[in-house]
Amino acid sequence: MTTTGPTRMRTEIGQQPEALRRTIDGLLPRRPEIAALARESRQVLFIARGSSDNAAVYGRYLVESHAGRLGTLAAPSIATAYGRRLDLSGVLAVAISQSGKTEEIVETLDWAAGCGARTVAITNGASSPLAEAAEVALVTDAGEELAVPATKTYTTQLAALAVLGLGLGPGEGADADDLRRVPDEVGRLIALTEASEELPAIAAELAEVQGAVVSGRGIAFGTALELALKIKEACYLHAMGLSYADLLHGPIAVVDDRTPALLVAAESGPTLQGTIALAHRVRGAGARAYGVGGGRGLAEACSRSLPGPSLPEWVAPLGLIVPGQILVERLARELGVDPDVPRGLNKVTQTD
Amino acid sequence: MTTTGPTRMRTEIGQQPEALRRTIDGLLPRRPEIAALARESRQVLFIARGSSDNAAVYGRYLVESHAGRLGTLAAPSIATAYGRRLDLSGVLAVAISQSGKTEEIVETLDWAAGCGARTVAITNGASSPLAEAAEVALVTDAGEELAVPATKTYTTQLAALAVLGLGLGPGEGADADDLRRVPDEVGRLIALTEASEELPAIAAELAEVQGAVVSGRGIAFGTALELALKIKEACYLHAMGLSYADLLHGPIAVVDDRTPALLVAAESGPTLQGTIALAHRVRGAGARAYGVGGGRGLAEACSRSLPGPSLPEWVAPLGLIVPGQILVERLARELGVDPDVPRGLNKVTQTD
Repeated sequence: MTTTGPTRMRTEIGQQPEALRRTIDGLLPRRPEIAALARESRQVLFIARGSSDNAAVYGRYLVESHAGRLGTLAAPSIATAYGRRLDLSGVLAVAISQSGKTEEIVETLDWAAGCGARTVAITNGASSPLAEAAEVALVTDAGEELAVPATKTYTTQLAALAVLGLGLGPGEGADADDLRRVPDEVGRLIALTEASEELPAIAAELAEVQGAVVSGRGIAFGTALELALKIKEACYLHAMGLSYADLLHGPIAVVDDRTPALLVAAESGPTLQGTIALAHRVRGAGARAYGVGGGRGLAEACSRSLPGPSLPEWVAPLGLIVPGQILVERLARELGVDPDVPRGLNKVTQTD
Repeated sequence: MTTTGPTRMRTEIGQQPEALRRTIDGLLPRRPEIAALARESRQVLFIARGSSDNAAVYGRYLVESHAGRLGTLAAPSIATAYGRRLDLSGVLAVAISQSGKTEEIVETLDWAAGCGARTVAITNGASSPLAEAAEVALVTDAGEELAVPATKTYTTQLAALAVLGLGLGPGEGADADDLRRVPDEVGRLIALTEASEELPAIAAELAEVQGAVVSGRGIAFGTALELALKIKEACYLHAMGLSYADLLHGPIAVVDDRTPALLVAAESGPTLQGTIALAHRVRGAGARAYGVGGGRGLAEACSRSLPGPSLPEWVAPLGLIVPGQILVERLARELGVDPDVPRGLNKVTQTD
């Protein structure tokens, strides 16, 4: 691998504050349109794959915890392979795709509309087939993303989902000002993470292991899944993303002195204490626990840790993945992998 | 590790034909009761953790592909950690727990009832708190299970879900006779797998790797997740269970000459061809592909393979996990792990 200057992935990580600002400013005025479309919806069906599916996990917890609606991650094969029809009246279908070109996702959104759902697209592709297929298209303004691992397209998807959550309202304790604080906070967090002495230390230690467990709960669960996916796709490590509870139902057996756990949490919220308890349990099993976010409580419970965003829990995931992205980019280079072009992957994945 | 005679896990694997026969005979007459309870339900919400959650994934694909209803896997933390109420009118909540004693599951089912859902329990604990909390309790008749890794309690949960699917009907192309064929077929499959020369060869090869990817699609996806969980909990390998499509969206990068893929499929159905194509892609990446089921087509595409059940696709998962269970038990012993008592786990997991 020969690189001169920063990787594209690193450059795109650094573009997130501006990408988020443009996206949030552009989408907040769309709330009335979302509210009108969703007026008769009882629930939300998310249609996505890969990093976009991890964004959907955030969306799911957000609509359940702040908009009083059940959220479901679609099984696209029911539409595309089985060709079965479901009764989707009263359902708001939200398809998420960075490119807006993945045929499986476009086809499944069309299927949902045919089954009676109202439709929203979240995509960075302004005139993509997905944007054109939906009744309301929330187009993220991330700019062009060249590195294969999604960074700014992922966090701007989260921003669009946060706007969706506000549009669905009422959202106890959640308002647009929380979201407007995100871009500056992400900028601060990038600088803080880059300056952290823990960053090279964690990367050096992870470069010696075969695999890791990544765990988070509730609103932070999608962040854990996304960090695990990034580690798999850019570092080829066996990273398993698991919720706190699912980890205790079996896979905790995997954690040992060669298999550390990365634990992600917002600095407040009802799942923080459980994450801290998990850090103690992981270390009790003789394994290292690395914290991302979770405030001082999680940092003190972990072997090493990276800072997290200082944001209300409901928007914390927009920042919480960022230290993880920086860690992954560094770890990939440490392992001799070019994070911009991992083996076996293309920027637009076609599945059927 | 000192063992004389077969492990408990092996003994319990062998008890599955009788456990399935008792469970199916006991539950099939309950179909009218299920139909009555579900008459006004538009959709099904599954509440489960661990192996029971993998059973729920089967249930989800079954109700979507055969009963015309959207299926959702619940996020219990919304109930237990966030304490938020959702509108669950028109929802049939189905809680699945081997013991029926996991407090998180009982609490989440109670929450669902309080939010307007009708309730079903699937448990092996006849007078457990979960059975008592539900309007309809479908009690599996697996007998006592002593090994920590669930085998007969898992397959009998699948049988209960198949009965649920029939109760929700109409189920194009699915009838009770398909289900009645399962116990004999599982008996035949156990004998066939034990006699296979591929079994010791695959176990010996897997004993040399750090991790593996396990993939299946549609109705077989839950089987892939369950096989991955078994490999993690009883063999401490880094096994990732992924759908066909999610594998192609990133984690395919992990597959290489040190990281094989296990691919599971029914011998018919609309996802078989995709699984065969995945086997070719995995081998094209220089990795070994092990097939479980999928008929001659998948066997020929894979490096090695184990036989699968000869059953209609909708009930195939009740047999498809069995060769995987036998492989895991053998691999655990090969690795010097007592599969009956993996480290860090108890038979009843309490999460909150």
